[in-house]
Amino acid sequence: MDYSKIFAQAIDRLHAEGRYRVFIDILRNKGSFPNARCFAGHNGPKPITVWCSNDYLAMGQHSSVIAAMEEALHDVGAGSGGTRNIGGNTHYHVDLEAELADLHGKEAALLFTSGYISNEATLSTLGKLLPGCVIFSDELNHASMIAGIRTSGCEKRVFRHNDLAHLEELLAQADPDAPKLIAFESVYSMDGDVAPIAAICDLADRYNAITYLDEVHAVGMYGARGGGISERDDVAHRLTIIEGTLGKAFGVMGGYIAADRNIVDVIRSYAPGFIFTTSLSPVLVAGALASVRHLKASSAEREGQQAAAATLKAIFAEAGLPVMASTTHIVPLMVGDPVKAKKISDILLAEYGVYVQPINYPTVPRGTERLRFTPGPSHTHAMMRELAGALVEIWDRLELRVAA
Amino acid sequence: MDYSKIFAQAIDRLHAEGRYRVFIDILRNKGSFPNARCFAGHNGPKPITVWCSNDYLAMGQHSSVIAAMEEALHDVGAGSGGTRNIGGNTHYHVDLEAELADLHGKEAALLFTSGYISNEATLSTLGKLLPGCVIFSDELNHASMIAGIRTSGCEKRVFRHNDLAHLEELLAQADPDAPKLIAFESVYSMDGDVAPIAAICDLADRYNAITYLDEVHAVGMYGARGGGISERDDVAHRLTIIEGTLGKAFGVMGGYIAADRNIVDVIRSYAPGFIFTTSLSPVLVAGALASVRHLKASSAEREGQQAAAATLKAIFAEAGLPVMASTTHIVPLMVGDPVKAKKISDILLAEYGVYVQPINYPTVPRGTERLRFTPGPSHTHAMMRELAGALVEIWDRLELRVAA
Ligand SMILES: Cc1ncc(COP(=O)(O)O)c(C=O)c1O
Ligand SMILES: Cc1ncc(COP(=O)(O)O)c(C=O)c1O
Repeated sequence: MDYSKIFAQAIDRLHAEGRYRVFIDILRNKGSFPNARCFAGHNGPKPITVWCSNDYLAMGQHSSVIAAMEEALHDVGAGSGGTRNIGGNTHYHVDLEAELADLHGKEAALLFTSGYISNEATLSTLGKLLPGCVIFSDELNHASMIAGIRTSGCEKRVFRHNDLAHLEELLAQADPDAPKLIAFESVYSMDGDVAPIAAICDLADRYNAITYLDEVHAVGMYGARGGGISERDDVAHRLTIIEGTLGKAFGVMGGYIAADRNIVDVIRSYAPGFIFTTSLSPVLVAGALASVRHLKASSAEREGQQAAAATLKAIFAEAGLPVMASTTHIVPLMVGDPVKAKKISDILLAEYGVYVQPINYPTVPRGTERLRFTPGPSHTHAMMRELAGALVEIWDRLELRVAA
Repeated sequence: MDYSKIFAQAIDRLHAEGRYRVFIDILRNKGSFPNARCFAGHNGPKPITVWCSNDYLAMGQHSSVIAAMEEALHDVGAGSGGTRNIGGNTHYHVDLEAELADLHGKEAALLFTSGYISNEATLSTLGKLLPGCVIFSDELNHASMIAGIRTSGCEKRVFRHNDLAHLEELLAQADPDAPKLIAFESVYSMDGDVAPIAAICDLADRYNAITYLDEVHAVGMYGARGGGISERDDVAHRLTIIEGTLGKAFGVMGGYIAADRNIVDVIRSYAPGFIFTTSLSPVLVAGALASVRHLKASSAEREGQQAAAATLKAIFAEAGLPVMASTTHIVPLMVGDPVKAKKISDILLAEYGVYVQPINYPTVPRGTERLRFTPGPSHTHAMMRELAGALVEIWDRLELRVAA
């Protein structure tokens, strides 16, 4: 048994497919984000502009967030020192859960160390507690939901992306007496399209299913108070469980679910991924609390971001670049090849000081490799025009025009 | 299908068994830990002494850790804003991975958002990459390892706790040509005993197995530089993968593995729990970097903690309390009943201002419910004598003497 050889071959496969990932080593400049410094392949840091951050609203740099974290750091220290049950339940955690429950109009909420583990732990535990449960899963669901569904051991039926007719067909085929759960996202982060939440809730009612909505890319971003697409569309009360992250629009780190008191209590009591881990640092929780509160009261960041996204889409379209049909804040350009996507990204960084990561398999299906831009309220029109100019030059240089 | 009823019944089962968990809501007092404030069931915060923190060395309050976090907060902001591949790879991450690789004498290291997810992601991915792999797992392994092994889909053989003869028996039974992995911990955190690492490595050599050691409760705590029991016993070079946390002795939050370059690259490239999640906040990474560096150079905290643990064990034994046979920094008192363990803990908090959480199933096997004390360098002898006095009084009040 030659273990090294097996591992080396696994790496070789990635190189052969052109999807071996090289991490770009950066530091953001607090206060002047999207400006940052890049450390890769240079002598000392080189200034760059970041175009692919999920800190969509730059809340990770917001003065109220920084101040809250600094205060917690000085009041209680760095880490929580324990699991939620054993010493790691701080007053910050209790307050943030109440704030998140309120954000989604639910009775209760529960914090996790990440959005990933909130999906994994909640879906796997729900499935285990509902014997014979069938889980209906959108084909583009995030890897963390897929992981949770697999661990649940439940029968899984995958419906075509946002396809209500297909979902209904699968629901109708299932045993009417079996517990059923429909798992889906609101904003799909790599395409930028949105699920028909109300219509999915109608189907859930008709077939007596519970619903699980991942709002990771929508919390903080949509709705009058940042409650996500479910707030914007006024359907939050119809969803059984809403899941979100503190690491994207809220600018910090961590994940959560919001639901009725009993469901939250069940997950709190049974989910290994919640129970057996050091709780979120109180410093992060304090920052997230400030961020959620700020975005509940202020829509300026959301409006600035939406305006920036609309402008960038228009500029790209005008320049003849293959911008995909996103209806949200996400601006993807289709490339369709992993090697070319990486090449464009490399040129942008080396020659233009523009940082945008190529998106390849397994994050998106093979053959749909792309660049994904997330303009924020601080990306100026001048930056956008420069970016489009650079892309047109590279598209020409690599003779991509026809392909697009 | 009455979902509410199923969930309510799941909660009722916990109440019936006396193991429904109530989280105690606390805030530590930075600078004077183990002093803290408790919010549960009082009018305003009440001062308490914490006896069950896993911030064993109080590094979560260390001035160098706090200063590093404050600097990162002001230099780059709150969150990383992305996955490691997409915008979330900061220079802090790169530096900390190098520091951790050095700590364990390995070529490379990889950060995760928690120790839980480092175990889950690494074990599941290794198992998937080694077709036909058989995983040999100590019966007391942590829930996060069990989760990873289950997700790997591999055949699992459980050996009796720290039982070399049983492990060898199982290794000998397995197909000689199958890949084999032995997964175990160094310090078992609920009993405080230590694995025979060298002898397990001998068996691994004999049967051509790779080894995976969870050093979560030992990193920072043992070895001249805090490299864990594997450093203390000079066997780090014999282990294939060493896993640790940044959330216990290092006082912050996060997890990691250290191994040779190829293995780290494989996990980095294939593990969903690493790939599909916002990376650790640079603020946490900066704090962990300061903590790891400090404990590499300073043994004072380790020595103070070991002395405190020895003193507390002696005081407990002298007082006739049922202290378990721990050979490490962990001081467990056996109770053997979930309701009584909770009762003792409740009295300690309400009447003595002492916070120690009861440890019940599923954290420990049923019938071995206990209290678990983690004295640190800042718990004074006077605090220890007071604690022992309180316990003796409660033990008498509840007529536990005979049972113990
Ligand atoms: C749809 C979706 N769900 C969940 C997650 C995981 O959230 P987190 O980054 O907080 O782990 C992500 C991205 O990371 C995501 O895109
Ligand atoms: C043995 C062991 N491994 C792993 C973990 C998980 O580490 P973390 O708290 O960093 O998630 C824990 C405790 O939480 C543990 O006790």
